[in-house]
Amino acid sequence: MFDSVRLPHKLDKAEFTEISERLREKLLEAQFEFGERKQKSLVLLINGSDGAGKGEVLNRLYEWLDDHSLETLSYGAPTEEERARPLEWRYWRDMPAKGRIGLMLGGWHHRLLHHRAQGKISRAAFETGLEEINRSEEMLRNEGVIVVKVWLHVEDSVAQKRLAKLREDGGRLRRAVVIEWDDIKGARAREKLVRYALDLVEKTSTGYAPWAVIAAEDARYRDAAVAELLLATLERANAESAAAAPAPTPAPTPERTAQDPALPRASLVGSLDLTLHADGEQYGETLDALQGRVSELTTSRKFAHRGLVLVFEGNDAAGKGGAIRRVRAALDPRRFRVRGISAPTDEELARPYLWRFWRHLPRLGHTAIFDRSWYGRVLVERVEGFCSRDDWMRAYTEINDFERQMTRARILVIKFWLAISQEEQLARFSSRAERPAKRYKITEEDWRNRGKWPQYEEAANEMIDRTNARRAPWTLVESNDKKYARLKVLRTIVERLEAEV
Amino acid sequence: MFDSVRLPHKLDKAEFTEISERLREKLLEAQFEFGERKQKSLVLLINGSDGAGKGEVLNRLYEWLDDHSLETLSYGAPTEEERARPLEWRYWRDMPAKGRIGLMLGGWHHRLLHHRAQGKISRAAFETGLEEINRSEEMLRNEGVIVVKVWLHVEDSVAQKRLAKLREDGGRLRRAVVIEWDDIKGARAREKLVRYALDLVEKTSTGYAPWAVIAAEDARYRDAAVAELLLATLERANAESAAAAPAPTPAPTPERTAQDPALPRASLVGSLDLTLHADGEQYGETLDALQGRVSELTTSRKFAHRGLVLVFEGNDAAGKGGAIRRVRAALDPRRFRVRGISAPTDEELARPYLWRFWRHLPRLGHTAIFDRSWYGRVLVERVEGFCSRDDWMRAYTEINDFERQMTRARILVIKFWLAISQEEQLARFSSRAERPAKRYKITEEDWRNRGKWPQYEEAANEMIDRTNARRAPWTLVESNDKKYARLKVLRTIVERLEAEV
Repeated sequence: MFDSVRLPHKLDKAEFTEISERLREKLLEAQFEFGERKQKSLVLLINGSDGAGKGEVLNRLYEWLDDHSLETLSYGAPTEEERARPLEWRYWRDMPAKGRIGLMLGGWHHRLLHHRAQGKISRAAFETGLEEINRSEEMLRNEGVIVVKVWLHVEDSVAQKRLAKLREDGGRLRRAVVIEWDDIKGARAREKLVRYALDLVEKTSTGYAPWAVIAAEDARYRDAAVAELLLATLERANAESAAAAPAPTPAPTPERTAQDPALPRASLVGSLDLTLHADGEQYGETLDALQGRVSELTTSRKFAHRGLVLVFEGNDAAGKGGAIRRVRAALDPRRFRVRGISAPTDEELARPYLWRFWRHLPRLGHTAIFDRSWYGRVLVERVEGFCSRDDWMRAYTEINDFERQMTRARILVIKFWLAISQEEQLARFSSRAERPAKRYKITEEDWRNRGKWPQYEEAANEMIDRTNARRAPWTLVESNDKKYARLKVLRTIVERLEAEV
Repeated sequence: MFDSVRLPHKLDKAEFTEISERLREKLLEAQFEFGERKQKSLVLLINGSDGAGKGEVLNRLYEWLDDHSLETLSYGAPTEEERARPLEWRYWRDMPAKGRIGLMLGGWHHRLLHHRAQGKISRAAFETGLEEINRSEEMLRNEGVIVVKVWLHVEDSVAQKRLAKLREDGGRLRRAVVIEWDDIKGARAREKLVRYALDLVEKTSTGYAPWAVIAAEDARYRDAAVAELLLATLERANAESAAAAPAPTPAPTPERTAQDPALPRASLVGSLDLTLHADGEQYGETLDALQGRVSELTTSRKFAHRGLVLVFEGNDAAGKGGAIRRVRAALDPRRFRVRGISAPTDEELARPYLWRFWRHLPRLGHTAIFDRSWYGRVLVERVEGFCSRDDWMRAYTEINDFERQMTRARILVIKFWLAISQEEQLARFSSRAERPAKRYKITEEDWRNRGKWPQYEEAANEMIDRTNARRAPWTLVESNDKKYARLKVLRTIVERLEAEV
């Protein structure tokens, strides 16, 4: 999950100056309107590893926002007053009123994570705690409190360097930062902490209160990203309040358009090295070998007790069909099905959106190949506005649940994103349009979609970040070179089958 | 929870004929409209102990409804086909389309409960399973599937008698009923099963898919009650579809009015013996003794590590104030607070509704007395339409969570419902109106509320059924005789303190 955070995210001084000026102005405007409307309150939970700069972010927000309607909600070890009451009491006590913004350090997630990392609570208690958090946050949301959750990420090595520097500076600087994890010592313990944190982020990322994981290595980028998230949330809340005069639940609001990108986005999909290509001479031989291995593995005795689900998503004309054909050729035709997913039938429209995929799930020993899939909800349906923001936001959790149900039933789930560049897509579209035999493959709609490249890229990135589960990870496939892509797809299948079956 | 189900629920033949005719007609009408609209589908889950008549209910519904848009979804041990796929697959396969109604036997709750009763899964796995069920049902709800969950309740002794009779009749009759719990043998094992079932009903009763626990000893009452629930759900769905043309989420619809009671309701509150009264001569002495004991217990060393929350709800003029004064007199004035809850302040309105109670929670060693409480949400706010049905339905879960947070933090929660008869209320109102010193206690609003007696009684009953948690149970106090009521309140406090501190 959230692997894109490991990409370089940087702003130089000039970029930062320009962006921050614009952000400040808009933030103040949005905050003012939010305060005037008094329809909702907002709590921004700032979490992350020590050395990621939680305190610095807090200071920056005070600098950029109007501090009259801002509150800091900061929690350390419980005070005597707090110990004498239920654990949740201190958060309730400090609940900001409508129109106000609370900036929270050391909130409810932190306490749970801390206890788990210290071994004070069991895995089961941890999980129950996470579920309780979800219930509380859902209730808060229903009660008009917008919960925004930020996880600031830095690599452990960077964090350690920063902390060492802080410690050298002695008491002076130390007072200026909150050091929360001081009792978690040693690389081993910290690694464990990271694993628990990932688990927490995964299990408490809900439609009503999703996590945003933000790269915090570069302080300028970090601050701008948090501010931008806050701005988007405030603007959405204001738009909803404006629209929602009669109904308690707001109408779906349009996504912020990518035409107004406040911040250069680091993009997993955009950062792929699309110059990668296969060795043309070796191609045929390698392909044969890989297909042979897939064939062996999927007819083995062990595979009879397993199932295989292959998901192909990607840009239009990225070569999904060609890749699927190469995989299919290696499979026993009695034991696989390819499902091309286009517009749903009437039958399917009459049921929850996951139903059309459930009906095509393979039985054990079989393989189902999905040419496009349930991810349509968070890609095309999101970008084209076929469903509301609430609907596609909750879809991430629902899809993760769905895939967990598969993997728990011993189905191996392998997901591919086939990526090509805009130039390559144009070339392929043009060549298709020229060749009568391929012309059916290119439609008006393809050209229209191409016009929304940035929105699709953003949707793809968020999809990968939010559904890259441990048991069902994404494989990104550089596909400007078709041969390279096909070999990578087959190789991934072989590796996963070898490792997990 | 759901204790009202133990009250006698019976319909004689004549009553049944009359009610069932009316129900059938309305049901068909509502079903027809539901089918025409094709906005939602409905799944009715029929659960309960063996011998409660699940199969009979199913047959009855087929008799009363139009079977063209009806489907039976019945699940036993998984077939070979089903075992080869994720557990959830079979429910998805059978998902009814919009406009259709599915009647489900042996659904997802049943499987989990069965596994738990057989000791196949641990407590933690059971709880995780319940959470997963909640998530799925929430998703279904968001996707337009209405989930209605019925638990048919009979006492074990009755069930055993019925089952013995069925077994005597040999294979013939036996085939006609589903015997699902055949492998749970012995009173001990069945007792355990009941406990798990209660746990399941408690933890999967959500705002989006609450359980209805229905008394099933009398077959006529049972069938009419299930049909009535189905009717109310269909009518609500139709009304929502009609209203919801633009918005995806329906506007709150008014509760069914109590002027049109389809079925005589068994009422916990209404079934109290209000002729109970205290022995006038002994009263003073008993009162002194009880107050002395409360005083001792709340100043003991052990109590310093506990807290006490007393909740007083009841009919207007039921004597809450008088009872509270008698309790207060026994407490150390430095260590208690009485909170009269009336209209919320601006401060409180600006925050989630539980906030105003959290802020008045006692610290350990202290007592908080609430004269009216968080239950206002499911009483006055419900009846007067101050919040939507969705809001008060989810409030039951939220209140249970809230009280669990208290009891977990070692606060003892004691809840009283003070009940008087309509006649007694009239007498008290009149006497208040006549005496200048008491006149301030009676307002226009009291008279208006009195006009909604049946709605308030229904709300009180449902409140008690849905929030009578094991750790925070309700005590119903027969209050036509004030002295009796005061002694019962004090006695309850003494008993709970003695048992739990």
